[in-house]
Amino acid sequence: MSLIVQKFGGSSVADAEGINRVARRVIETKNAGHDVVVVVSAMGDTTDDLLDLANQVTPEGPAREMDMLLSSGERISMALLAMAIDAQGGSAVSFTGSQAGMITDALHGRARIVEVSPARVRRAIDRGMVAIVAGFQGMSKDSNNITTMGRGGSDTTAVALAAALGADVCEIYTDVDGVYSADPRVVPSAHKLAQVSSEEMLELAANGAKILHLRCVEYARRFGVPLHVRSSFSHHEGTWIVPSPDDKIHLQEGEPLEQPIVAGVAHDLSEAKVTIIGVPDIPGKAAEIFGVIAGANANIDMIVQNVSTAGSGRTDISFTVPISEGQAALEALHAAQESIGFADIDYNEEIGKLSLVGAGMRSNPGVSHTFFKALSDNGVNVDMISTSEIRISVVTHADRLAKAVEAVHTAFGLDSSESATVYGGTGR
Amino acid sequence: MSLIVQKFGGSSVADAEGINRVARRVIETKNAGHDVVVVVSAMGDTTDDLLDLANQVTPEGPAREMDMLLSSGERISMALLAMAIDAQGGSAVSFTGSQAGMITDALHGRARIVEVSPARVRRAIDRGMVAIVAGFQGMSKDSNNITTMGRGGSDTTAVALAAALGADVCEIYTDVDGVYSADPRVVPSAHKLAQVSSEEMLELAANGAKILHLRCVEYARRFGVPLHVRSSFSHHEGTWIVPSPDDKIHLQEGEPLEQPIVAGVAHDLSEAKVTIIGVPDIPGKAAEIFGVIAGANANIDMIVQNVSTAGSGRTDISFTVPISEGQAALEALHAAQESIGFADIDYNEEIGKLSLVGAGMRSNPGVSHTFFKALSDNGVNVDMISTSEIRISVVTHADRLAKAVEAVHTAFGLDSSESATVYGGTGR
Repeated sequence: MSLIVQKFGGSSVADAEGINRVARRVIETKNAGHDVVVVVSAMGDTTDDLLDLANQVTPEGPAREMDMLLSSGERISMALLAMAIDAQGGSAVSFTGSQAGMITDALHGRARIVEVSPARVRRAIDRGMVAIVAGFQGMSKDSNNITTMGRGGSDTTAVALAAALGADVCEIYTDVDGVYSADPRVVPSAHKLAQVSSEEMLELAANGAKILHLRCVEYARRFGVPLHVRSSFSHHEGTWIVPSPDDKIHLQEGEPLEQPIVAGVAHDLSEAKVTIIGVPDIPGKAAEIFGVIAGANANIDMIVQNVSTAGSGRTDISFTVPISEGQAALEALHAAQESIGFADIDYNEEIGKLSLVGAGMRSNPGVSHTFFKALSDNGVNVDMISTSEIRISVVTHADRLAKAVEAVHTAFGLDSSESATVYGGTGR
Repeated sequence: MSLIVQKFGGSSVADAEGINRVARRVIETKNAGHDVVVVVSAMGDTTDDLLDLANQVTPEGPAREMDMLLSSGERISMALLAMAIDAQGGSAVSFTGSQAGMITDALHGRARIVEVSPARVRRAIDRGMVAIVAGFQGMSKDSNNITTMGRGGSDTTAVALAAALGADVCEIYTDVDGVYSADPRVVPSAHKLAQVSSEEMLELAANGAKILHLRCVEYARRFGVPLHVRSSFSHHEGTWIVPSPDDKIHLQEGEPLEQPIVAGVAHDLSEAKVTIIGVPDIPGKAAEIFGVIAGANANIDMIVQNVSTAGSGRTDISFTVPISEGQAALEALHAAQESIGFADIDYNEEIGKLSLVGAGMRSNPGVSHTFFKALSDNGVNVDMISTSEIRISVVTHADRLAKAVEAVHTAFGLDSSESATVYGGTGR
């Protein structure tokens, strides 16, 4: 018997039918002999509807009151789920964020968890009940105001509770089967990953894989909570996200114990490329530039600085920012053009980023050769390159991105015609 | 400068426009130099919508979870109102029932207030802010669960807060101008009462006047809180409900200090009459019968026992119960027919109750004569009679009720062609 935290998103509890389906799922788990803690998001579009309502009143409501408003959504879904479980013969009790001891800082709208004291949740479990906790919300430590945690908040609530309760696993239920070796909409032959390490998942999420919020994966990794991403519409095993590669477990008979070199290919079309042309090649200029960008609250991802053309004393600096923050960055740069003394700016939203992620890269030097060969063989022109210990990312033209993702996916033997654990880079 | 508690019901905050109108109203009061605490109900049909949702999941949800569900409605309206006040240049902060210190017993769905500790509300006022409190909800003393107070809950919240904060007045905003001398839909010439005492209002409310919930009037009377019932759609003075007749104040110039004998005429079509025929006229039978009714959770209102027909040794007992509880009462009685030993039961839903209410009755013996003369002059047949110190009620046939109300209203000079304070019973 183990303690399982199950998180269900808004699409899983969008209506009474969904709530009843989730209730059945929870009761099945409970009847299998496990203790169950459930974290729910607001029903379907509830949060958006509440935001619309707020906008009708004022476009800029005080953050504290926005949190008071938005936090009501989970209270509805969790109470209904408790009723559904009760109606199906189970026994459940629901708790608001503050009742569940989710103590946060006072940053309304994007509160961070500072402490989790789930005494009431624990008592409910000990009494044999299913504890249902409102996701996405907490109570600020000093002011005792209701706070919300922003995007991915409910996933974070689930992981934080799992960590505080010492749960054996935190199951994140979603509308897909799990984490794939690439976006199946781009690569039809992509296969579901049985397991992936936290650091790999972090790189995948940070580089375009939408399935899990970065924050929840970071939290799970820090506290050593195993995540199991799976579908609320099927009983198939999903993808296990294990805190470290050593935790990867032997799943099926006959599966090699050795791990695949690469986990998957992520892609991202949400960034734009900014090239600052003719920057005086003297110390401190880069710092000046990135200071300006930071001042505009734009988040820089990749950075490339070319060597200065011989004798010109000038160089070009390229970097990528989210398209949504591009204009702010440009305005800030133009405003600082004189002081920085650069010649011109080139701005391009027609780019795409491809990232190959795999913990095995560390020990497999052949990877980059296979990677770039696959791109060149398929006529994909590489614009920028950045790497981490377990990732290679390139920026290419947006039109070529899908082709590039497919080519790399195939080159590393990730296509599902082959087993999920066959090694990539056989051509090395 | 005084402290004013203002309560706005669901119809006043049904949409963004209503919320903005209420916000203007609150700011006006604040700008007039008063401290303001606002109690709000859920928006329009929110509570009904939540109940529908719950019914889709299960017809019988656990009471604790129903309260968790229903209490979310006020959190939405109060947060939106706080935003609206902020947007209009005011400064407001909203509090849930538990944040406002509304401590109740653990009777979910019909919780009673056991303690009010509005420390946070007080701090907000002292900081010059408008404090907005969720009506209808609290937190149970021992279990710290969210509770709701049932029908009239928000009015009770407002009065309880006014009492705990020592407010000068509790304004109950509604969609009518105030309390009338009779239901204007039945008596077009009914006039708005400038003032009415708590005990008069209690009798009026208990006998069919829907405007205020009995419980809130009782609470206001017990704690000496002056109520001011008025419209949220106009700035007219409404009706003041003063804790005792002695508190009645001289409102307009030239108004006689003496109070009118009768305040108004209430009517009620929601009751049925049960007559138990041929009850053995021996001690304890009535007790048996009413024990059976109580066992069926039916609330008895009026009771009449006729003298037993000479020599028969049997008598008839009549009483009224809410139509909604009539069937339960009948079934319980039929089940007990043998043990009680009565002959038959007559059940009649085609009845109406008329009640004349006025503190002045005590000292004016002529009232009943005027009352019954008005009824007989208008061919109204009286079926049952019951009286209190300040009330006379009669049951008549439902078809005659409207006529009877008009006749009595006129006989006591309550028609608005005359002043609200002209004495009734001039014919005495």
